[in-house]
Amino acid sequence: MRRFSSRGHDFLPTEYTNIKPFLPSLPPPPIGPDGSPLGPEALSVLFPSGMIQHEITLEPRVPIPEDVLEAYKVYRPSPLIRAFELERALETPAHIYYKYEGTNPAGSHKSNTALPQAYFAARDGISRITTETGAGQWGSALSQACGRFGIDLDVFMVRASYLQKPLRKTFINMHGGSVCASPSDRTRSGRSFLESDPEHPGSLGIAISEAVEVVLSEEDSCYSLGSVSDAVCLHQSIIGQESILQMEEMGEYPTEIIACVGGGSNFAGIAFPFLEKMLTGGEKIKFTAVEPTVCPTLTKGKLMYDFGDASGLTPRYMMYTLGAGFVPPPIHAGGLRYHGMAPLVSHLVKLGLINPVAYNQQKTLKAGREFTRLEGILPAPESNHAVAAAMDSAIEARESGEKKVILFNLSGHGFLDLAAYENR
Amino acid sequence: MRRFSSRGHDFLPTEYTNIKPFLPSLPPPPIGPDGSPLGPEALSVLFPSGMIQHEITLEPRVPIPEDVLEAYKVYRPSPLIRAFELERALETPAHIYYKYEGTNPAGSHKSNTALPQAYFAARDGISRITTETGAGQWGSALSQACGRFGIDLDVFMVRASYLQKPLRKTFINMHGGSVCASPSDRTRSGRSFLESDPEHPGSLGIAISEAVEVVLSEEDSCYSLGSVSDAVCLHQSIIGQESILQMEEMGEYPTEIIACVGGGSNFAGIAFPFLEKMLTGGEKIKFTAVEPTVCPTLTKGKLMYDFGDASGLTPRYMMYTLGAGFVPPPIHAGGLRYHGMAPLVSHLVKLGLINPVAYNQQKTLKAGREFTRLEGILPAPESNHAVAAAMDSAIEARESGEKKVILFNLSGHGFLDLAAYENR
Repeated sequence: MRRFSSRGHDFLPTEYTNIKPFLPSLPPPPIGPDGSPLGPEALSVLFPSGMIQHEITLEPRVPIPEDVLEAYKVYRPSPLIRAFELERALETPAHIYYKYEGTNPAGSHKSNTALPQAYFAARDGISRITTETGAGQWGSALSQACGRFGIDLDVFMVRASYLQKPLRKTFINMHGGSVCASPSDRTRSGRSFLESDPEHPGSLGIAISEAVEVVLSEEDSCYSLGSVSDAVCLHQSIIGQESILQMEEMGEYPTEIIACVGGGSNFAGIAFPFLEKMLTGGEKIKFTAVEPTVCPTLTKGKLMYDFGDASGLTPRYMMYTLGAGFVPPPIHAGGLRYHGMAPLVSHLVKLGLINPVAYNQQKTLKAGREFTRLEGILPAPESNHAVAAAMDSAIEARESGEKKVILFNLSGHGFLDLAAYENR
Repeated sequence: MRRFSSRGHDFLPTEYTNIKPFLPSLPPPPIGPDGSPLGPEALSVLFPSGMIQHEITLEPRVPIPEDVLEAYKVYRPSPLIRAFELERALETPAHIYYKYEGTNPAGSHKSNTALPQAYFAARDGISRITTETGAGQWGSALSQACGRFGIDLDVFMVRASYLQKPLRKTFINMHGGSVCASPSDRTRSGRSFLESDPEHPGSLGIAISEAVEVVLSEEDSCYSLGSVSDAVCLHQSIIGQESILQMEEMGEYPTEIIACVGGGSNFAGIAFPFLEKMLTGGEKIKFTAVEPTVCPTLTKGKLMYDFGDASGLTPRYMMYTLGAGFVPPPIHAGGLRYHGMAPLVSHLVKLGLINPVAYNQQKTLKAGREFTRLEGILPAPESNHAVAAAMDSAIEARESGEKKVILFNLSGHGFLDLAAYENR
C-alpha cells in the first residue's frame, strides 16, 4: 500500500483547466454602478491584460505561460499523501488522502496564482502591484512572486492579523514588498474606518477598498487579488489536476473532496478539475466547503449582488455574502475572514453541487494539533478547517461502515502561525 | 537552459554512501577515559544497535531501511535549482546551483538523520529519546521523526536560542516532544553551569552533557545527536547522491562545493558523495566549509582528542576543537555554535581536501537578505554562511574570468528565524 505518489515533473500540467464550459449554467456577470453587466474594458483600470483574459475565457484549457511553468517547477508537483497514521488513530475504514501545498518557498497554495499575476503585470510593463492580505499568506506569496518578476509590491494587511503575525511583515519586506496595517490613514476608505474606531481590527473587505483606491489613483500600477475571482480559481486548478494524476497512481478515486473556504480559491483549485470529470460522466463526488462559524458566508449569508470590498469601489458580484460591511471577529484563520465568496463557488452551492459547513476555531485548532502529532505536518489555521471536516467524515464512515475515499487540501503550513497553537 | 532538475522518486537513492572505504586513511578512533580506543560495545549504553552499526561500518554502500525510505518520500528528492537571478545580479560568468533542503515538514536537512535515528530506536523497543538542540532545527526534525515512529522525546535546548526562538518550543511540543532550556537544574552538569552563571547562555556542548547524563541514568531510553558522528554524516549522504544525479540531468558538474559547518553534517552530506567520485578518479572539486567567525573551530581550533560535550561525559574524539569548555557568543546561527567538528570532516581538513573559511554574522545576514530578494527563498541563518561564500566565489570568478560551477547546500528555511533578519 502506497503512502505517496511519485512526484516527477511529468506530473506537472502545462494547462489550467476551466470549469466554466462544463457547467449547466454560468454565474450572472459582475455589474457596474448602474446595474448593467461589466465588460472586460471596465476591468482594465485594475488588472493586466493577461488577467482579464483569464477572467473571461470560456476555453476549457488555458496554456500556462512558459515563465510561470518554470517558476512552478521549484515546488510543483506538490505531494499527495495518504494519512495512514490519522486513519489508524480514528479507527476508520475510510481512506484519507491530502494534497500538501506547503512545500513552496512562501508556504501555501497562494503561489499558484501569485506567479501568473506577477508575470502578467511584468509582461504589460507594469512596475508596481498593490494588494490586500488577511493572515499574510497571500501577501507572502505575492511578494515572493513580485521579487521573481522584478515588480514593486505594496500590501494592505488586515490589522488584526498584522498584530497577530508580525513576522509576516518581515517576510514580505525581505522579498522586497512594503506592508502597512489596514485600515490605514493612506486612503479615504481607511481614514473613514479609523474615524469610526481608531483601533479598528480591519477586514479583507476594507483592505481591498484601500488597495483598489490606491491603484485607481496611480499610473503604471495594477491591483492583484489572492482569491474570489474566476482567474484565480483557474490558476488554482493546477492543484486538482495534479491530484487526479496522483490519485490515479495510487489506484483510488475520491468519493469526497474537502477544502476550507475564505474567498474560495483553494477549494476551487482542488475541486473543479474533479467536478469537471463528474459533470462529463465521471463518478459522483461529494464536495465539502468548510468555513469558520464566525464568518459563515455560505451557511448563513445570502446569494445576491454585493461589492467585493467594504467601501463600494469594486464592481458588484453575484455571490453569497454577509454584507460588504461585515467585520468578523479576529480569529487565527485570518485568511478566511471575508464577507463574500467566489462567484463560481457561490453558483455551485446554489446548484447544489457543493455542500457548505461551518466549524469553530476551537475544534479546528484541536484537529490541527492532532494532525500534526500523527502526520508530522503542521497545518496553517485555515487548513485546519479541512482537517477537522475530513476527520469528522472519517469518523462517520467508522460508524456507518461506508467505504469512503476522502481527499482534502492542506493548503499551507503553519510555521508563521505557531503562536495560534500556543494560546489555547 | 534549465533552472531545475526534475524531481521524481526515481532520483531517490536507496542506499547511503559511506566515504570511509575511499579515504587514503581513516580518522583515529574515539577513546575512553583511559585513552584506549572504544569499541562498539562502549556505545551501546547510549545508542540503538542500528546507529552503532552505521557508526562503525566500512561498507561503501549501506541500505536505507524501507520504513525510512517511505518517510523520505514525503519530501525527497529535494530540489536542485540554478540561481539565475543571483548570477545576473552578481554579473558573474560562474554558474551557481543550490540544493534546497527546506521543503520537508521540519524545514531543514536534519530530517535526513532524524528519521533513521527514530526508526532504529523504535526497532530496538526504546520508548524515549533524549537529545540537545542549538537553534532548534535538530529538535524540530527529531520531534517530527519521533512522532512518526511513536517515540517520546526530551530536548535540552541551548538557552540563548531558547530565548531567541520561542516558537521552536511550540513546534517541538506540537509534535509531542518536551523541551527545556539548557543549562537546566535537571542534571548535575546543568546545575554546575548555572551555579557559575544563573543566566548562562548555554552551548551545544553543555546541552549534550545534560542529554547524555539523563540517558545514562535511565532505562529504556537512548541518546540521539544531530551532527558530528560518522553515522549522521552517512545519513546525510543522500543530499550529495541526489545532487550527483541532478547535476548530471542539468548537464554540468561542480568545480566547487560549499556548505556551512557547525558539527559538519550538512557539509558532509553534500560533499562526501562528490569527494568519493574525486578520490576514485573523478574530476577535481574544491570543497569549502564555512563557519562563523565567533566559533572558528576549523580556522582557529586545534586538531586533538577532545570531549564531545562540556562536562566530559562522552568519549574523546580526534577533531578540530576550541576546547570542550568554549562558549561562543549567542549568534542567530545557533546551529553553528559547537566547539568541535565531525571527526571525518576534521580528518579531511587535515588531509588538505577541505578548505575551511570563517564569515561574520553581519556579512552572512546581508547575503541572506540579498538571496531572498533575488531567488525568492528565505534561508536559515546557518545556511546564509554558504550563501555568502558562494556569492564571494562567484564574484571572484567575475574578476578572474575563471569558469566555475558552484554548488552550495541551502540546508534549511528561515521561517522560524525571521526575527534574526528584523534586528539589523
